[in-house]
Amino acid sequence: METKKNKEPELIADRQALLRTFITPEREEARATLLKYMEQVLFGLHDFLIQHVGITQEKSLMELSVYFQDSNISKNPEKKLADVIKDLIDDIAPHAVNVASPYFIGHMTSAIPFFMVHLKTIVAALNQNVVKLETSKVVSVVEKQVLAKIHKLVYRKPEEFYEEHIQNTYTTLGAFVEGGTSANLTALWVARNIVFAPKGDFLGIESEGLQAAYKAYGVERCVVLVSRRGHYSLRKAGGLLGIGNQNIIPINVDAKHRIDLECLSQTIKDIKKEGKTKIIAVIGIAGTTETGTVDPLEKMAEICSENGIHFHVDAAFGGPVLMSDKYKNLLAGIELADSVAIDGHKQFYMPMSCGMVYFKSPTIMDAIEYHANYVIRPGSVDLGSKTFSGSREANSLILDSALKIMGSNGYALLINHGIELARRFADEINKRTMFQLVTTPMLNILTYRVCPPEYMKDLSSGEPENKRSTNKKLNEINRDVQRIQREAGKSFVSRTLLFEGNNSEDRVVVLRCVIMNPLTDMKIIKEILDEQEAIYKDIVFEQENS
Amino acid sequence: METKKNKEPELIADRQALLRTFITPEREEARATLLKYMEQVLFGLHDFLIQHVGITQEKSLMELSVYFQDSNISKNPEKKLADVIKDLIDDIAPHAVNVASPYFIGHMTSAIPFFMVHLKTIVAALNQNVVKLETSKVVSVVEKQVLAKIHKLVYRKPEEFYEEHIQNTYTTLGAFVEGGTSANLTALWVARNIVFAPKGDFLGIESEGLQAAYKAYGVERCVVLVSRRGHYSLRKAGGLLGIGNQNIIPINVDAKHRIDLECLSQTIKDIKKEGKTKIIAVIGIAGTTETGTVDPLEKMAEICSENGIHFHVDAAFGGPVLMSDKYKNLLAGIELADSVAIDGHKQFYMPMSCGMVYFKSPTIMDAIEYHANYVIRPGSVDLGSKTFSGSREANSLILDSALKIMGSNGYALLINHGIELARRFADEINKRTMFQLVTTPMLNILTYRVCPPEYMKDLSSGEPENKRSTNKKLNEINRDVQRIQREAGKSFVSRTLLFEGNNSEDRVVVLRCVIMNPLTDMKIIKEILDEQEAIYKDIVFEQENS
Repeated sequence: METKKNKEPELIADRQALLRTFITPEREEARATLLKYMEQVLFGLHDFLIQHVGITQEKSLMELSVYFQDSNISKNPEKKLADVIKDLIDDIAPHAVNVASPYFIGHMTSAIPFFMVHLKTIVAALNQNVVKLETSKVVSVVEKQVLAKIHKLVYRKPEEFYEEHIQNTYTTLGAFVEGGTSANLTALWVARNIVFAPKGDFLGIESEGLQAAYKAYGVERCVVLVSRRGHYSLRKAGGLLGIGNQNIIPINVDAKHRIDLECLSQTIKDIKKEGKTKIIAVIGIAGTTETGTVDPLEKMAEICSENGIHFHVDAAFGGPVLMSDKYKNLLAGIELADSVAIDGHKQFYMPMSCGMVYFKSPTIMDAIEYHANYVIRPGSVDLGSKTFSGSREANSLILDSALKIMGSNGYALLINHGIELARRFADEINKRTMFQLVTTPMLNILTYRVCPPEYMKDLSSGEPENKRSTNKKLNEINRDVQRIQREAGKSFVSRTLLFEGNNSEDRVVVLRCVIMNPLTDMKIIKEILDEQEAIYKDIVFEQENS
Repeated sequence: METKKNKEPELIADRQALLRTFITPEREEARATLLKYMEQVLFGLHDFLIQHVGITQEKSLMELSVYFQDSNISKNPEKKLADVIKDLIDDIAPHAVNVASPYFIGHMTSAIPFFMVHLKTIVAALNQNVVKLETSKVVSVVEKQVLAKIHKLVYRKPEEFYEEHIQNTYTTLGAFVEGGTSANLTALWVARNIVFAPKGDFLGIESEGLQAAYKAYGVERCVVLVSRRGHYSLRKAGGLLGIGNQNIIPINVDAKHRIDLECLSQTIKDIKKEGKTKIIAVIGIAGTTETGTVDPLEKMAEICSENGIHFHVDAAFGGPVLMSDKYKNLLAGIELADSVAIDGHKQFYMPMSCGMVYFKSPTIMDAIEYHANYVIRPGSVDLGSKTFSGSREANSLILDSALKIMGSNGYALLINHGIELARRFADEINKRTMFQLVTTPMLNILTYRVCPPEYMKDLSSGEPENKRSTNKKLNEINRDVQRIQREAGKSFVSRTLLFEGNNSEDRVVVLRCVIMNPLTDMKIIKEILDEQEAIYKDIVFEQENS
């Protein structure tokens, strides 16, 4: 662990030493230095991975935190670069989470191809700031091109459309943002501003605010409709935008966890009848966070179109499935969305963190346009004029390069592996009497729980009271199994709380798996299930003997 | 330039090749491969810097954009990694902007110490997701420690305060965010939610929205007060939060571009008297974007305290001046702020992009707390519960390491160099008859303009009409000088539009310099001024001969 202050007297901040740390082209030997440290980084991390196939060291956060109690910044340098790198590899990495392990199948964070690290290094070394042309130049053009490529993947507009817009400085096909949260926020921000656009004396909601907007449009409330499986960041966006997070209305789901179309239509009808509420957007989900479910996008688009409502698709997780010819039909209807959120750091396998948002209309982002005197002047190519972010890194270079290195077929291999392995995983669970499959995977996410035969019997007895108390016991068991497995550090699945149907009283703790790592295979999955069975048996043994 | 499709028939997406790109600990030779490519990255960029001391190649964006017109994602891999890296170095870098050049003194984006690139590489390779403990573990603890270190730098609370909060899982001293825009937004979001906190039947603005909040509090409007020099992202935040960007009220500035305290006090008084408007926050600026001015923070804090108003300081640029014992008094009063925004990618010299926001009260961020079923459950250590962002990279590891490598004295050397060189730069401008210093640097930003003696005479003639028409001519000249210098690609200063005093009719185009690169010196500055003089003379010569 980090030693508490390891001050060596010879470390003194000095100007000459400092200047040497800035990349100076004049000094030829600087090359060797740069590489020496990078070798330490790469070999060190590589050795670490050889020694740690598991997830993390079995040391609790409480134990760890005693080493991180010092709130003082040292006056003089505390450590040399080589020692800092060594500490990161020896002391931090083992207690971080080895998300690159094929045994880590619990979250949407995964192993990434090694070249992503090299690409990120290039982006860091170039240190372009894409907010404005003056700090990015050609990178802004690259970004517009990548945005067009993904836009085309989603919307499949005719060639002429892309010829017109790909490098058009007046239109925007989408934007790179920090992540899925920002992407969804941006889409709702645009949708809100379109609903409350300027009219007559009213300058628009962006300028005058929500109160004035409601007044100008004779409205008392506005809402966003999304299935009960919607990501929590949508509520956050509702709070931020001044709509109020309770006005992100959860719509019931069907037995397959997809939005209930009847219920959606009825809700829209009721709201329209009531007359004082505006619907800012309906959100379809292409890969829910908890169950990987894809909503019936095509039918949702139809409903939205009939009612003149902005249709947003949160494809933060599922978007890249479009790269697979074999499975892209799972997202059918996404091309009808007015806006689509896709994460780069999920199934595009980019390093943390990169989100994107796309819009069907190349002028709709004008609704959130801002200018400044020193940059981003009207008519400029500055990409920052229509993004939430100010300064931001050139993540588009990484995606552009990755698309060239992998091709869509390369991505398809990853996507197909995930979906197909998840199906085999589900079969394996169905084969084992100790487990119950809770959600069948549509994409590469599945949920299940430890549910031994004796509990299964109670559940199927039909008595609601009996069922509820059994679920309560099972919830406790599954919570324990997940925690014990996580703390042991060999493998990792996550857990979440699902509502059976739409009744919030029937809450079921489930184990949740996301299959993204191409090195994860059935052998590993069986090991993980075996470990869970063993943990469960230990729990029972201890209970019986205590 | 990039060749339009250079498809080699042998490039086919294949599963075995793909698996090899995922870092596999079993394969010893993978080490060598990783390093080989990194050598290509680092040596390539280093060679590039030797050849290009300037800013960018003299090729217009229009010319460049013809190479980036293809909107198709190739099915098969287009290029091998080595070729992609080669293209980035040979074709992209020369047409990007060499922000590492000491001749690049136009924006807050600068050269960074080389070790920052190594640290970013480690962060990318570990690929931790700090939104939750399950994908970061010890990194969450490191982040809390760094937040405490910077909090202490700003607020200087007693040791016991930090002992209590540094690793406290129930309190939060601040947050890492995407950048200054997110940092300011987060502060205003918190301030808005505190002003419209739950009371009686009202569940709070976050839940019920702005309309209900105004009703519950008997308010018709709310505003944020900030000097005319406030960053444009504050207006964006106002638009996003539903307040309306026209309610970000610009307060007049004094002759030194600092907020006019009289005017601030009077505005507050007027608003209070009117009775139907709530002031969400007053914002002081520690380093305005355009002129580097620091507002009188101490007195502003006093005014806010007397009036019970949230006092936010936008120290996105200026914050790290606190690392310099010599100049930290320039930010006196910052410790009285309720919240402070500081950027990591500006004067902490971190790679793009990293922002931070700090709060005096360790519980105030509860006002924006969110939970989910699958992570970030109540009471968890998950850092994502009180940030705008969801998934995000572990930038705290970079700052933590940089603080250890540099010490505060190391940062002080950089800060002092910038401030002192800016002063000498100002002296040099004052010495040259061709230029006029427009704003004397308080920190390391100064503005000036080309203003030859004959124009200076017109300006001082005292006739307002004459002055206005002279300014108009000068504006055109300075616009041209800046553009021609930028396009030539040898050096770069930016330009902006300043209002003389508070009258929006007297707009003056100024050249703007930000001195951050420690390799920038007076020799380079004189060269840049010489080039500007030469460009001006060329303009005059051409005008006289056309």
